[in-house]
Amino acid sequence: MQTEILERMESDVRTYSRSFPVVFTKAKGARLTAEDGREYIDFLAGAGTLNYGHNHPDLKQALVDYLMDDGVVHGLDMWTDAKRDYLETLEEVIFKPRGLNYKVHLPGPTGTNAVEAAIRLARVATGRHNIVSFTNGFHGVTMGALATTGNRKFREATGGIPTQGGAFMPFDGYMGDGIDTLAYFEKLLGDNSSGLDLPAAVIIETVQGEGGINPAGLDWLKRLETICRRHDILLIIDDIQAGCGRTGKFFSFEHADITPDIVTNSKSLSGFGLPFAHVLMRPELDKWKPGQYNGTFRGFGMAMVTGAAALKRFWSDDTLERDVQRKGRVVADRFQQLAAWLTDQGIESSERGRGLMRGLDVGTGDNADKISEEAFKRGLIIETSGHDGHVVKCLCPLTISDEDLLEGLDILDASTKAAFS
Amino acid sequence: MQTEILERMESDVRTYSRSFPVVFTKAKGARLTAEDGREYIDFLAGAGTLNYGHNHPDLKQALVDYLMDDGVVHGLDMWTDAKRDYLETLEEVIFKPRGLNYKVHLPGPTGTNAVEAAIRLARVATGRHNIVSFTNGFHGVTMGALATTGNRKFREATGGIPTQGGAFMPFDGYMGDGIDTLAYFEKLLGDNSSGLDLPAAVIIETVQGEGGINPAGLDWLKRLETICRRHDILLIIDDIQAGCGRTGKFFSFEHADITPDIVTNSKSLSGFGLPFAHVLMRPELDKWKPGQYNGTFRGFGMAMVTGAAALKRFWSDDTLERDVQRKGRVVADRFQQLAAWLTDQGIESSERGRGLMRGLDVGTGDNADKISEEAFKRGLIIETSGHDGHVVKCLCPLTISDEDLLEGLDILDASTKAAFS
Amino acid sequence: MQTEILERMESDVRTYSRSFPVVFTKAKGARLTAEDGREYIDFLAGAGTLNYGHNHPDLKQALVDYLMDDGVVHGLDMWTDAKRDYLETLEEVIFKPRGLNYKVHLPGPTGTNAVEAAIRLARVATGRHNIVSFTNGFHGVTMGALATTGNRKFREATGGIPTQGGAFMPFDGYMGDGIDTLAYFEKLLGDNSSGLDLPAAVIIETVQGEGGINPAGLDWLKRLETICRRHDILLIIDDIQAGCGRTGKFFSFEHADITPDIVTNSKSLSGFGLPFAHVLMRPELDKWKPGQYNGTFRGFGMAMVTGAAALKRFWSDDTLERDVQRKGRVVADRFQQLAAWLTDQGIESSERGRGLMRGLDVGTGDNADKISEEAFKRGLIIETSGHDGHVVKCLCPLTISDEDLLEGLDILDASTKAAFS
Amino acid sequence: MQTEILERMESDVRTYSRSFPVVFTKAKGARLTAEDGREYIDFLAGAGTLNYGHNHPDLKQALVDYLMDDGVVHGLDMWTDAKRDYLETLEEVIFKPRGLNYKVHLPGPTGTNAVEAAIRLARVATGRHNIVSFTNGFHGVTMGALATTGNRKFREATGGIPTQGGAFMPFDGYMGDGIDTLAYFEKLLGDNSSGLDLPAAVIIETVQGEGGINPAGLDWLKRLETICRRHDILLIIDDIQAGCGRTGKFFSFEHADITPDIVTNSKSLSGFGLPFAHVLMRPELDKWKPGQYNGTFRGFGMAMVTGAAALKRFWSDDTLERDVQRKGRVVADRFQQLAAWLTDQGIESSERGRGLMRGLDVGTGDNADKISEEAFKRGLIIETSGHDGHVVKCLCPLTISDEDLLEGLDILDASTKAAFS
Repeated sequence: MQTEILERMESDVRTYSRSFPVVFTKAKGARLTAEDGREYIDFLAGAGTLNYGHNHPDLKQALVDYLMDDGVVHGLDMWTDAKRDYLETLEEVIFKPRGLNYKVHLPGPTGTNAVEAAIRLARVATGRHNIVSFTNGFHGVTMGALATTGNRKFREATGGIPTQGGAFMPFDGYMGDGIDTLAYFEKLLGDNSSGLDLPAAVIIETVQGEGGINPAGLDWLKRLETICRRHDILLIIDDIQAGCGRTGKFFSFEHADITPDIVTNSKSLSGFGLPFAHVLMRPELDKWKPGQYNGTFRGFGMAMVTGAAALKRFWSDDTLERDVQRKGRVVADRFQQLAAWLTDQGIESSERGRGLMRGLDVGTGDNADKISEEAFKRGLIIETSGHDGHVVKCLCPLTISDEDLLEGLDILDASTKAAFS
Repeated sequence: MQTEILERMESDVRTYSRSFPVVFTKAKGARLTAEDGREYIDFLAGAGTLNYGHNHPDLKQALVDYLMDDGVVHGLDMWTDAKRDYLETLEEVIFKPRGLNYKVHLPGPTGTNAVEAAIRLARVATGRHNIVSFTNGFHGVTMGALATTGNRKFREATGGIPTQGGAFMPFDGYMGDGIDTLAYFEKLLGDNSSGLDLPAAVIIETVQGEGGINPAGLDWLKRLETICRRHDILLIIDDIQAGCGRTGKFFSFEHADITPDIVTNSKSLSGFGLPFAHVLMRPELDKWKPGQYNGTFRGFGMAMVTGAAALKRFWSDDTLERDVQRKGRVVADRFQQLAAWLTDQGIESSERGRGLMRGLDVGTGDNADKISEEAFKRGLIIETSGHDGHVVKCLCPLTISDEDLLEGLDILDASTKAAFS
Repeated sequence: MQTEILERMESDVRTYSRSFPVVFTKAKGARLTAEDGREYIDFLAGAGTLNYGHNHPDLKQALVDYLMDDGVVHGLDMWTDAKRDYLETLEEVIFKPRGLNYKVHLPGPTGTNAVEAAIRLARVATGRHNIVSFTNGFHGVTMGALATTGNRKFREATGGIPTQGGAFMPFDGYMGDGIDTLAYFEKLLGDNSSGLDLPAAVIIETVQGEGGINPAGLDWLKRLETICRRHDILLIIDDIQAGCGRTGKFFSFEHADITPDIVTNSKSLSGFGLPFAHVLMRPELDKWKPGQYNGTFRGFGMAMVTGAAALKRFWSDDTLERDVQRKGRVVADRFQQLAAWLTDQGIESSERGRGLMRGLDVGTGDNADKISEEAFKRGLIIETSGHDGHVVKCLCPLTISDEDLLEGLDILDASTKAAFS
Repeated sequence: MQTEILERMESDVRTYSRSFPVVFTKAKGARLTAEDGREYIDFLAGAGTLNYGHNHPDLKQALVDYLMDDGVVHGLDMWTDAKRDYLETLEEVIFKPRGLNYKVHLPGPTGTNAVEAAIRLARVATGRHNIVSFTNGFHGVTMGALATTGNRKFREATGGIPTQGGAFMPFDGYMGDGIDTLAYFEKLLGDNSSGLDLPAAVIIETVQGEGGINPAGLDWLKRLETICRRHDILLIIDDIQAGCGRTGKFFSFEHADITPDIVTNSKSLSGFGLPFAHVLMRPELDKWKPGQYNGTFRGFGMAMVTGAAALKRFWSDDTLERDVQRKGRVVADRFQQLAAWLTDQGIESSERGRGLMRGLDVGTGDNADKISEEAFKRGLIIETSGHDGHVVKCLCPLTISDEDLLEGLDILDASTKAAFS
């Protein structure tokens, strides 16, 4: 494979091409094909962007039809039939069955843009500046969002400028068993000299993705909602990675029976890997004046076409939900077996996750890298996450076939055993 | 047209659908078609995103081929043949003939993301925090970019948080005839108690878009480059709106014979309205460590396909350049005639711009709105810009046919006369 | 007493004159005299500024002699014999016996100025921006220091600007018995995505004053020093209120056998209530360039005269130290008795402190105010502190006579019983 | 002279002791005496702090009487007879004859503290964050005040943290003859995309001290007031250095017939070199809640005693005012002669100032240092200011005798000629 120009011309910031240094040319379902014809099973799936797999035929068809029909690809935030259809579908397929009532803000088509819009709206709506996020949380890297992202890798690359307007609280379980991290949050809130400015909002992933596949307890989330209500703090669920069915429900917060004030979505929202994002907000929070937040690619037409098609195709009934939950258990079982085997080898390991967002914690980033590298050699793309990169994570397409899923898991099993035998 | 759900569900932040309150269903070349079948000539063109028109057949074909072939739509920043082809084309078609040598950073696919990356890189590379931008400049609305964007509409919607790390200088001509705005900048630079922190970088649009189609003088730009070199300040040209041929050269800064340290591109970069952005940097400025700046949709596969196709199709020779310059003169002439007519009616008006980025300054936003509204009634989509919205701007596709161009200009002429007779 | 002009002309920001609404005209030792001739025992003592009482005759004599001799009252930071004598005395009387080696920075003569200088120096010396402070900590209200001060009263009076460059950790005991707050700090430090930027420094009061007379455990402080050393974080002890003998040692950190990298002093440093402050730093941390931090009243001549006299008078042997410890036990005993009595009345109360910095926690600010108001009626000036103002605090002069001390305690006893019987 | 301990123990931040490396032991009127008995005429006078000279006998007597009478030296912000007398005197002697009506905030006793309080109040009162200051302005170095101070020396010593909430405008004359700097300010204010956030306040010195003795034109100041009123921006006059008679009126703004919304005072306010500061505000701007801004040494008793004595002694009639104006002309004449002589020698020089705040601009800091060094050798203490330290400045006591004044000017004359002959 010819990679010289790629290595020479692309900035050193490139990262995934370091872990998987081949040139990919085709992608279909849960499989990527490299230029040399080798196929890889994809347990990364665009870091949660390809919940319905690569190039899903139904979505592709909708997209090609739209193109062939000269639909509006780019129209800023003008009205199009594609937007209308998307909003109608969102209301009918998603909101109504769940009893939700949100307005939709279409900012620039990236997650960080949605987060910037969400926290700015929370500030405008409350008149307060502080946004509470959580240890190991990731919400984007533009300067506004970065104030809520825990990773030093990004925080130390600002050229010395500190982020502003954010404060971090310990996530569920962060302080160890038996320590109630929400009790700490509540104490700070109720204490007039705690140093915690009364927050405009809390922003949280119900299952932390980049942070290491850390699921917050459902009771803990419910209590967090209660605390927010009591102190008049807005609750923002960042469902960019955990949403769109990844955890076994369309919105990850459905498991906890909570109703966020604001929701951010992106990644799998278009269903096809197209850049797309939105912010959902309780109607009375829509304090925006016309044009106060903009972006050239807001309301990307093609993404609304595939997004609507994906909602209709996968969310009109509970088939996918149940399938995700079933496959999630399959992955969990295999991860638990691997964790047990590793622990037997002296590598303290454990499994965690929700739905098909699952992690195998192998203690150190070095351990995880060994497994990931072995897996790639054997034809499986699987990445690591967590503060030390110590968690091997499965974000395979929700629509993966049982055959591919099992083959992938078998490869992971063999890779782990090869790495540590 | 059914618009109830659009008005009910979309956030009040929506803006273009207020100026053009119809539902668009088709787009081709320089024309948009509404649901009721009415066609509109498009002098807005995605605010400079559709330099090659809507759904250009060659680009569409490349895109559909890629899709039908199950190319990699979304692959984070992994290597693909689409990326390789894009980089090769960029080097062969654009860099080499211009004697340029840049590395390419593919951040999230929006302009503001590219600006955030560019200014962060400048800070890391210089160890300084201050980014100088200019009055009436627009460089995006995420918090980092917002520090360089002049518009109060956005700056006052942060919920009270001031931006940090930016300082504004007067743009060319801002202080009136005979006042050298760069002399002021130089004085501040050379003065140890001026209050101007020694900048990491200057970021500038060579022709300000949102600010009112304000072209900086070519000598002024050259002097700005000289000042930056003398003080070891990086020069960032934000070519997001003015680039990709809009001014009659691929890069807008070619006119001034300057070589920026860093360039930001987006909008028309994909050639098809697809979200795409990159940062170009002198190789020695590539101080990024792997993964220090990320984004889910970086290196969007489809955009690289159409982007490469557009470069090959339009930039392998100087046909388009010369055509843009010719059409630019046509628009300029008609705008000058309109300005003269308006001035005769007592409305002091003037024309300005470069290439096909042209403005008709009619003094007030109210005047400009009247013209724009009349034009829409007559089948022309044309927008306003400037600090008071007082500049009617032409950003028509560069590839517009002479017929459409003249029809559009005729409508504008009739609309202006209807508005002020 | 004539108070009309005071109420009319002084800003509503005034506070102590609301608690003690009389006009004072004389002060001597532990007693203040109001205009009507009434004497009050002073358990507030300038909020810890008058450790040697009001108008101590020896210090007054030194001051009057200096004045009569036309000594240099104000000389910016020029050299004077007064400064030389102060520095010599500081070295001989304080540093040498304790094995300390510090350089002395004389910033503006207030605590907040010393804190601003200390944290700025820590940033310059380490190249990092983050300063960790603790819940209920108070380190001043100018914008730099405010980033380390927990009180919402001040933090919410910035006109909406968030402070920058600070993060709060839970103080010793903050999370309840059995929860190790330093374990949490260490976990955050060792976690690359915790959201805690690696700190330049930690700033802490060994006994929190405004925060409610909260003494950090001595082992806890020692461990904090160890953690700082391990992570190359500077340890700043803010000894503005707890220093100058208040806790029974000249420096409050002597109890814990730690050696801070930087120390801030003010309040009782002049010994006479004169504005004075300094920053002590390990010599290798003195990264200041000439004039990089200034202030008109730095190195206030008269304060150095009384400051040197106080060091010679009170710190040449351990008489005062032992006396403070003895009196501290007297206060502690009486506070414990009061706490027990209050608890018997159903008002859960407790005593805490170190040396003559002691608090009686009576649960709520209302309770504490009742006691303080009754005490004032009976001739005792005593204030409250803590996040809810729920701690009655004793900061009486260290030199108070046993008679005055006991009379003050008797009044407090009677006031408490009057308030809650 | 023994200076080893001073050089060893004091931080490298020390500055004036580098220019005048002797140990001073006595001070009286306009003369300082070094340890070796040598007398120096003092044209620095505490950088404007000693307007009534060192150890003025009347003020000293008032102070010693207060001390001998055991007056309240330190009482936080409690009421004392000293405070009442100070406020009454301020009202009778200063406010009433000038038709002023201000409330008085007594913050910590330093200029920077007064500035922090003033700008915070402006933010709270307007709900806006931006404070406009001017090129070459100096308003203190704590982080809040630093946002309004132009000097890079301080701004670059923050450890990388940018200041926030400030913007700089060109001072009167900054852009050269014939360029109206207020026209630029007005244009930015009226332009919705200028990048200038609508300010809460403007803060300005009517004659810039540290910036190089730059007097703003009186018409220019009047127009600035008008612009502020028109845009509902508060006008803060920082009269810390230029106030207390320095320019020939008690308040420097009296010359321009303007009435600031807020005034900051310090330096010579106590009249004796004692730390003291206050903020004056229109009564309706007093938005402080009790205790929202504090400081241990606010309302320093001794300073109020000498401050009231100074007001009574010097401001009950216009004798001092007229005397300052007369002496100012004497200095101006001599400075103009020196400027002419220097210009003849090829060193382009000029004189400027107002009252006894006068500067001799000799082009470069090196030139100014040569003069200052020669003067010190000859027994005159005179300092430099300006962005390059290029202005020799006269801030001699207002009460200097004609003999001392002329002797000082003669030394300066001789020194200048020695330096450049």
